[in-house]
Amino acid sequence: MKRRIGILTSGGDCPGLNAAIRGVTRAAYEMFDAEIIGIHDGYRGLIEGDYSLMVRSQFSGILTLGGTILGTARTPFRNMRVIGDDRVDKVAAMKKTYKDLKLDCLVTLGGNGTHKTANLLSEEGLNVIGLPKTIDNDLYGTDFTFGFHTAVDIATDVIDRIHTTAASHGRVMVIEIMGNKAGWLTLYSGVAGGADVILIPEIPYSIDKVAGIVEKRARDNKGFTIIAVAEGAMSKDEAKLKKKEREIRRAAEHYSASAEVARQLTSLVGVEARTVVPGHIQRGGSPSAYDRVLSTQFGVHAAELIRDGHFGVTVALKGNSITHNDLKDVAGVPKLVPEDDQMVTIAKHMGISFGA
Amino acid sequence: MKRRIGILTSGGDCPGLNAAIRGVTRAAYEMFDAEIIGIHDGYRGLIEGDYSLMVRSQFSGILTLGGTILGTARTPFRNMRVIGDDRVDKVAAMKKTYKDLKLDCLVTLGGNGTHKTANLLSEEGLNVIGLPKTIDNDLYGTDFTFGFHTAVDIATDVIDRIHTTAASHGRVMVIEIMGNKAGWLTLYSGVAGGADVILIPEIPYSIDKVAGIVEKRARDNKGFTIIAVAEGAMSKDEAKLKKKEREIRRAAEHYSASAEVARQLTSLVGVEARTVVPGHIQRGGSPSAYDRVLSTQFGVHAAELIRDGHFGVTVALKGNSITHNDLKDVAGVPKLVPEDDQMVTIAKHMGISFGA
Amino acid sequence: MKRRIGILTSGGDCPGLNAAIRGVTRAAYEMFDAEIIGIHDGYRGLIEGDYSLMVRSQFSGILTLGGTILGTARTPFRNMRVIGDDRVDKVAAMKKTYKDLKLDCLVTLGGNGTHKTANLLSEEGLNVIGLPKTIDNDLYGTDFTFGFHTAVDIATDVIDRIHTTAASHGRVMVIEIMGNKAGWLTLYSGVAGGADVILIPEIPYSIDKVAGIVEKRARDNKGFTIIAVAEGAMSKDEAKLKKKEREIRRAAEHYSASAEVARQLTSLVGVEARTVVPGHIQRGGSPSAYDRVLSTQFGVHAAELIRDGHFGVTVALKGNSITHNDLKDVAGVPKLVPEDDQMVTIAKHMGISFGA
Amino acid sequence: MKRRIGILTSGGDCPGLNAAIRGVTRAAYEMFDAEIIGIHDGYRGLIEGDYSLMVRSQFSGILTLGGTILGTARTPFRNMRVIGDDRVDKVAAMKKTYKDLKLDCLVTLGGNGTHKTANLLSEEGLNVIGLPKTIDNDLYGTDFTFGFHTAVDIATDVIDRIHTTAASHGRVMVIEIMGNKAGWLTLYSGVAGGADVILIPEIPYSIDKVAGIVEKRARDNKGFTIIAVAEGAMSKDEAKLKKKEREIRRAAEHYSASAEVARQLTSLVGVEARTVVPGHIQRGGSPSAYDRVLSTQFGVHAAELIRDGHFGVTVALKGNSITHNDLKDVAGVPKLVPEDDQMVTIAKHMGISFGA
Repeated sequence: MKRRIGILTSGGDCPGLNAAIRGVTRAAYEMFDAEIIGIHDGYRGLIEGDYSLMVRSQFSGILTLGGTILGTARTPFRNMRVIGDDRVDKVAAMKKTYKDLKLDCLVTLGGNGTHKTANLLSEEGLNVIGLPKTIDNDLYGTDFTFGFHTAVDIATDVIDRIHTTAASHGRVMVIEIMGNKAGWLTLYSGVAGGADVILIPEIPYSIDKVAGIVEKRARDNKGFTIIAVAEGAMSKDEAKLKKKEREIRRAAEHYSASAEVARQLTSLVGVEARTVVPGHIQRGGSPSAYDRVLSTQFGVHAAELIRDGHFGVTVALKGNSITHNDLKDVAGVPKLVPEDDQMVTIAKHMGISFGA
Repeated sequence: MKRRIGILTSGGDCPGLNAAIRGVTRAAYEMFDAEIIGIHDGYRGLIEGDYSLMVRSQFSGILTLGGTILGTARTPFRNMRVIGDDRVDKVAAMKKTYKDLKLDCLVTLGGNGTHKTANLLSEEGLNVIGLPKTIDNDLYGTDFTFGFHTAVDIATDVIDRIHTTAASHGRVMVIEIMGNKAGWLTLYSGVAGGADVILIPEIPYSIDKVAGIVEKRARDNKGFTIIAVAEGAMSKDEAKLKKKEREIRRAAEHYSASAEVARQLTSLVGVEARTVVPGHIQRGGSPSAYDRVLSTQFGVHAAELIRDGHFGVTVALKGNSITHNDLKDVAGVPKLVPEDDQMVTIAKHMGISFGA
Repeated sequence: MKRRIGILTSGGDCPGLNAAIRGVTRAAYEMFDAEIIGIHDGYRGLIEGDYSLMVRSQFSGILTLGGTILGTARTPFRNMRVIGDDRVDKVAAMKKTYKDLKLDCLVTLGGNGTHKTANLLSEEGLNVIGLPKTIDNDLYGTDFTFGFHTAVDIATDVIDRIHTTAASHGRVMVIEIMGNKAGWLTLYSGVAGGADVILIPEIPYSIDKVAGIVEKRARDNKGFTIIAVAEGAMSKDEAKLKKKEREIRRAAEHYSASAEVARQLTSLVGVEARTVVPGHIQRGGSPSAYDRVLSTQFGVHAAELIRDGHFGVTVALKGNSITHNDLKDVAGVPKLVPEDDQMVTIAKHMGISFGA
Repeated sequence: MKRRIGILTSGGDCPGLNAAIRGVTRAAYEMFDAEIIGIHDGYRGLIEGDYSLMVRSQFSGILTLGGTILGTARTPFRNMRVIGDDRVDKVAAMKKTYKDLKLDCLVTLGGNGTHKTANLLSEEGLNVIGLPKTIDNDLYGTDFTFGFHTAVDIATDVIDRIHTTAASHGRVMVIEIMGNKAGWLTLYSGVAGGADVILIPEIPYSIDKVAGIVEKRARDNKGFTIIAVAEGAMSKDEAKLKKKEREIRRAAEHYSASAEVARQLTSLVGVEARTVVPGHIQRGGSPSAYDRVLSTQFGVHAAELIRDGHFGVTVALKGNSITHNDLKDVAGVPKLVPEDDQMVTIAKHMGISFGA
């Protein structure tokens, strides 16, 4: 059986992309007569016909490599909602490239935006298989996405380093962790790093409650407080705004969640709170062992699905099993932290405050 | 509600022990009126009445600390099977210490041996809660034990480093990974490290098959081969022996799985194969973020069980949930790699050989 | 011989402080009859008489610990230049504590500010020995300070991680490295991380030159550029301002060197440049092996000087030797990167641009 | 000016080789019209005419890569001292390849063996420049070789991990560090890792002294002892043997320094001492920031020397300066740890025993 497979990576870069690419392609080469077309810079390459025929040796030695050898770009329809024709044109262009290349299948590695487009192409009749990557872990239908645990490792290392400064100087430190909509990364790294306060978008906070924690710790002679705050964390007041309104305000103010928390705490408690914004380092570098295994498992399962001619799905981790979901059921559905998530309860039982 | 809790760590040391101790005790202090007795060096301290009353601050700052602040020792009944009376005396001594200390509960952190003793004490009427720790991940009833993923990180880092030597010199390198009975650690780190061959106790190997891989790679101009071999890996011939006989032979010969594989390959293929035995470094040092989270979750769940008066159980991870099993159902039941494990199939689809 | 030694850590925290404290005290305990007084939070503790008598076991297990077990605070005379009497009062208070404690010697671990105060106290007749710590490496008379190489490791790791994002997205990334006056940290981590452009305070840059590099790289099909910029880097225009004026302007504008470079590049070249500001993580966490060795060497040499009654000095590394300088000769003298520094020349020969 | 440069890496692989190759070649391309010939597997490639013309992009992205992209092999004259003709033939073959390739210069990266051959070729009239690489740091004329500090980092990390096991179990742990002739790696990592005993080839030990330390620590209630032993460490009795005789004995016995120390301690003190032999991991993986800087500096200086037509030298670090020595003065001269080395004295003042 001969199969011609197009593969692309889309959205923000993420540890494990190359490991997953290696998983798909190496398993495909092992299991059947595969021909791999690498599509450059995500959907842009599919739209513009920018791709190259790969040879097997190009996938050697990339298991540990950060980033993506195929290049990536943000999803094609971002900021384009009003221009309906543009969308149609782009879909037509992508279908044309797929047909011209005589692909048997398109494999897309990405997050929610990538999956929405993948589903759209699947509905247009293309054979599509998705792989869930994002450091945010906010894709519905999979316990974990690849990239997430590496980002947890990095963010935890950041909190560890700040711990020593906080303790030595007796300071309040506010660390801003990636995650605009979902608080998973802040929740996991906050627990792993021993944060005293964890603020996430799903649980709006009262700054008075946070100030109360800082003051209580000072009274108990714990001279410092570590606050892990997600980029998208919001106060109860802000949470009352409509989403659109909140986004406009934040953009206008160059809003930073950590700066806002630090400013208010400094004012309320009367001690200087400092911020740390590790930013892009949370998505760079070599994937952890966990993510190399998960990426490999996801990639191999995608190759198994290609072998079986099973398309229109995205691979997933459920419990200890690698499986898949129909794209139409999960594409673009966000997975947020439920307020009664077991991990939240466990964190509360540790005495960690969510400021609520 | 006041609760007097004894806590001990038993068996080989393991990353996450202190994080788990912190989880149990901090959640206990937060949730109810807890008094913690730290029992020294595992069951030895319980037998000999060697313990100390702990204060809360002793559990601060230990989240990232390797090893165990309580000390540990191998389980009390090892090598003592024939001396029946000794066993009875020791159990009596442990019960006496428990009664003298007026404990409401005993929390035991350990592996299969530790759990067997925990179950025995539970059957004797003591209130016992277990926490599953081991870098081997060979405890029945939990998807993962804490310590395992940190060990995978370390073993993967070892394979990464050996990769550069192997590639630069064009060498066959045989890396011996911990695991006498179970191959989980070798399987996960082998996949994460990009090993070409993975040999585990559950799948006896034919050295001729392994030699064939080395020769094929040489023919394909991949000048090196990485072989990850578990301590307990055995050839098909050896697998025919009775377990006892095999153990006696190995002990007599100072048997090393990696040395044996290297020796035979050198002889069969005619190229020098070198061995690396990282040994104890696989169980030392600071726990990874993953294991800090899991240890904390396990610890908090143990405290929840104490609060609820639910004893005779050991905590467990199932899928994404923290839960528990009855000690009598799982204590001492080993969890080995099934031959048809999904991870094994995935590895095979990557072209990784198990030498079978 | 009995010696009563006061020891304090002052200024920003820095990897290796605890290793150096351990070096001084352990060598002192080994070499003579030492009594150690730990002074809390730097000179504040000396002024206010806040200290504690230490026992030997308190210095065990701290070799790998980040931060300082003694606490630290910024130097006592910061922002106090106009209040002359205050300075006199504080010096008097410090002398009084020294006398009351019947100290034979005061050991101060810190940077330029700390050394100025140490020299002042030495001139007042106290027996003082300094140890040069700072991640900035800007102390005159020593090849390296401890803390510097750990910070280089961390900043290099940051650049490594950003490299993968930059390459995958084809982006211009501007990474802001600590260093307000001295560019050592940016220079070393920039070379170690493979930066394309390095901007340091000692070599004012022309943004047009930097833009030229970005454009040339784009023309050469290297789709990304990594720019390492020190906090204190300044354009040639800004360099013409008086130092005071520049500081006032920067404070008023919440100036950020990386944001300014990114803003101007985005405007000049027409591609979005992104910033990363790792901040405090550069000074936290466990010291590297290099810094543990250097801190230990510095600490032991300080103990040797105490044994020999040789005071009014600060220890130093010169070539491969641990030695010392008179406080009066080096205290508060900054060590900046000379324009003709060999490392600068070497970086230029690698094709790295300093924007000059 | 056009220059045709041959480059090879010889001897055991070592972190920083690729960084140094990148340093030489990138600086050469920047400074003059360079053509680079990559010679494969060290002198073997020069003897057999196995090489390839490199293009600039092949040196991109290798800064962080472990191993060597050129391949390496042990030096050509090992075990061939008696076969004089063979040596002559090989030298003739190397000269022929050099002439055939019309090289202007040969750059050799390696240790003592490599430098001996480099000097021999230089004496034969070839233009040779050496770069000092080895994790052993045993090359005369340079303060440090590249690779050494990365190996110190790895060995220190090993000792750190063993520390937690040793402390938790109250054990004597004997860690075998690379270094057959020189103890630098054991000395530095032993100090950085907080070892209690350091045994190096240059200072023969008395096992009774070591046993005394273990017993004293037990009496002082420090329940564990960390012993760092170099591969080549020897007892005072063994030191009396002739070198040749010692080597023959060791080879016959499959001698292991750590196993020998552990065996004797177990017998003398009556507690089980365990060994850890990290082996090849000490020479693998990505170079540290320190070694990336040093490798780059060495590489650029080599290119500067080529530009200036200054041959017959090997680059060196002296104090804070990159410089060079004449090959004839330093090639093959070992640099051992002097008994009165300042670092040894400092370690002794810390209470570290050398067993002497």
